[in-house]
Amino acid sequence: MIGNIDLRQYLQEKAAQVEKGFKTYLTDEDVPEPLRESVRYSLFAGGKRLRPVLLLATMEALNGNSDSGLPAACAVEMIHTYSLIHDDLPAMDDDDYRRGKPSNHKVFGDAMAILAGDALLTHAFETISHLVDTGHDADKVVRLTRELAHFAGIRGMVGGQAADLLGENQQLTLEELQYIHQHKTADMIVFCVRAGAILADASPSQINALTRYGRHIGLAFQIQDDILDVIGDEQKLGKAVGSDEAKNKSTYPALIGLDSSRQKLNDMIKDAKQALAEAGVEKTVLAQIADFVISRDQ
Amino acid sequence: MIGNIDLRQYLQEKAAQVEKGFKTYLTDEDVPEPLRESVRYSLFAGGKRLRPVLLLATMEALNGNSDSGLPAACAVEMIHTYSLIHDDLPAMDDDDYRRGKPSNHKVFGDAMAILAGDALLTHAFETISHLVDTGHDADKVVRLTRELAHFAGIRGMVGGQAADLLGENQQLTLEELQYIHQHKTADMIVFCVRAGAILADASPSQINALTRYGRHIGLAFQIQDDILDVIGDEQKLGKAVGSDEAKNKSTYPALIGLDSSRQKLNDMIKDAKQALAEAGVEKTVLAQIADFVISRDQ
Repeated sequence: MIGNIDLRQYLQEKAAQVEKGFKTYLTDEDVPEPLRESVRYSLFAGGKRLRPVLLLATMEALNGNSDSGLPAACAVEMIHTYSLIHDDLPAMDDDDYRRGKPSNHKVFGDAMAILAGDALLTHAFETISHLVDTGHDADKVVRLTRELAHFAGIRGMVGGQAADLLGENQQLTLEELQYIHQHKTADMIVFCVRAGAILADASPSQINALTRYGRHIGLAFQIQDDILDVIGDEQKLGKAVGSDEAKNKSTYPALIGLDSSRQKLNDMIKDAKQALAEAGVEKTVLAQIADFVISRDQ
Repeated sequence: MIGNIDLRQYLQEKAAQVEKGFKTYLTDEDVPEPLRESVRYSLFAGGKRLRPVLLLATMEALNGNSDSGLPAACAVEMIHTYSLIHDDLPAMDDDDYRRGKPSNHKVFGDAMAILAGDALLTHAFETISHLVDTGHDADKVVRLTRELAHFAGIRGMVGGQAADLLGENQQLTLEELQYIHQHKTADMIVFCVRAGAILADASPSQINALTRYGRHIGLAFQIQDDILDVIGDEQKLGKAVGSDEAKNKSTYPALIGLDSSRQKLNDMIKDAKQALAEAGVEKTVLAQIADFVISRDQ
C-alpha cells in the first residue's frame, strides 16, 4: 500500500470491517436483555474506530493480511468502549453525553453501565483468543494477550485514568501531565501499532520504531483533544467543550498555552513520521493517519 | 494424593501458595499510590481462596504439578476479587462491609474502587499468560484464556450478576434463580475445575465429569450462602446476615424453604461425588472440598 489514498474512505471501510467483526465475535445469546442492550448501545455507537483501524493499517503497511487481525482489532475497540462507559459514570467524570448521545448510564442506569463495561473488558480477551482461528501461532497470541492486558491495565490505561482523576483540582507539572497522557491515551494506541506489527511479522527494530510512532501520535492525539476542548465545535465533537476547564483539569493549553501546544503537536507528528521512515513504511497510510490526528476537528 | 488429609491445613497451605503468587504476578511499580493501595487492600484481604485452591487441588488430584498452575490460580482470584469490589459499590449491592472490613469504596471512594476492579480484571489476563513461563504449551494457554473470559464474562459471571440485580424485588421462578446461581457463582468454580483438569492433561471424559462436579459444588456453594444469610453467625461471616431478605432477593430458602434447600444441597453434593468417581478421583481432596462446601459456617 504505497502513495496517497483517500483517507476518509479508508477509515470508513476499515471501521465497517471492525463493525462486521463485532457481529462475529460479540456472542451474547442467553444474556439478560438489559445487559445485552447496554453493551450493544455503546459498542455500536459509531465513533472513528481509530484504534482498531490503526492496528489493521499497520498490518497492511507491512504487507500483512489485515483480515486475520480482526479479532485483535475488535478486542481493542471493546476495551476502548468499556473505558468510555466507566469513565462517564457519575463517580468518575460524570458526563451525560458521549458522541452526541446520552451516555450509557443515563440510559441503562449506573449498575448496568458498570456491568456492561465489565462485560466488554472481559469479552475483549475472549475475542483476541480467536486470532488462533484466523491463522496465527498460539505463541504470538499469548504474547499479544499479555501486551493487551499490560497496556490496558494497572501500569497502562487504568493507571493513567487513576492519575487523571487524582490530578483534578491540582496544578500538575508538565511531567505529571505527560504521565497521564502517556498511559491514559497513548498506551492503547501503542498497543494497536505493536499488535499490527507483531501480527505482520515485523522485525524487532521495526517494532521498536513503530512503538515510537504509536507513542508520538498517541500523545499528539491527547494534546489535540485538549485543544479541541478549548476551541472546538460542540456540534462536530458531539459533546460540550470547556469541560476540562470546568473540572479544573490540567491540560497542555492550560499549562503551556495554545501556541506552544500546537508547536508541541507539530514536533510530535514530525518525530512520528521519522519513526515510520526508520521502519521503512513512511509512504503508507500510517503517515496520513499521523496528519489526520492533528488536522481533525472531532 | 489419596486418602483423607487435614483439609483445614491443606486449604491454608494452598491459600498461602496463592498469596505468594500474587507477590510474583502483581506487578504494580510506577502506579499511582491510591490505585495501588486500593488493589492490594482487597487482594490481600484474606478469605478462603476457595476458587484458586480448587484449581490447584484438581491438578494435584490428577497428579499434575500444581506449582505450574499458579498463574491461572492467581488470575482466578484476581477476577473473584474485582467482582466483589464492583458488587459492593453503592450503585450495585451497596455493601459497606466485606470480610469484616470496610468495603473497598468505603476506604478509597467509588472512583478508585471502580478502577481497582478494572485493574484486577485486566491484570488477571496478564497473569494467566504466564502459564507459558511455567511450562505449559501456548495452545493450552490460549484455550484457558478463552475459557476464563467466557466463564467470567457476559455469558458467565457478569451475565449472572446482571440477572441477580434485575431480579431484585421480584418473585423469581426456581428456573430463573438457577440461572443466576449457575452464572453468578458456579461458572467461575466450573472454570477452576476445568482449568486444573486441562493443565493436568485430563482426558475429555474426565474434563466433562469434573465440569459436572464443578457445577454441582458451585450451585451448592450458593445455596449454602443463601442458607447462611438466614441462619449464619455474623461474627464468623464477617458481614451482616438477613441482607437478602432486606433487599427482597429471591433465594432458595425463600423459594422452597430451609429444609428443602438443605435436601437440595445434599443431593448436589452426592451428584458431585458421583462425578468425581466417574473421573477416577473420588478418593482425593476434591471429595473433602465437596463436604466442606455444605458444612462451612463462613
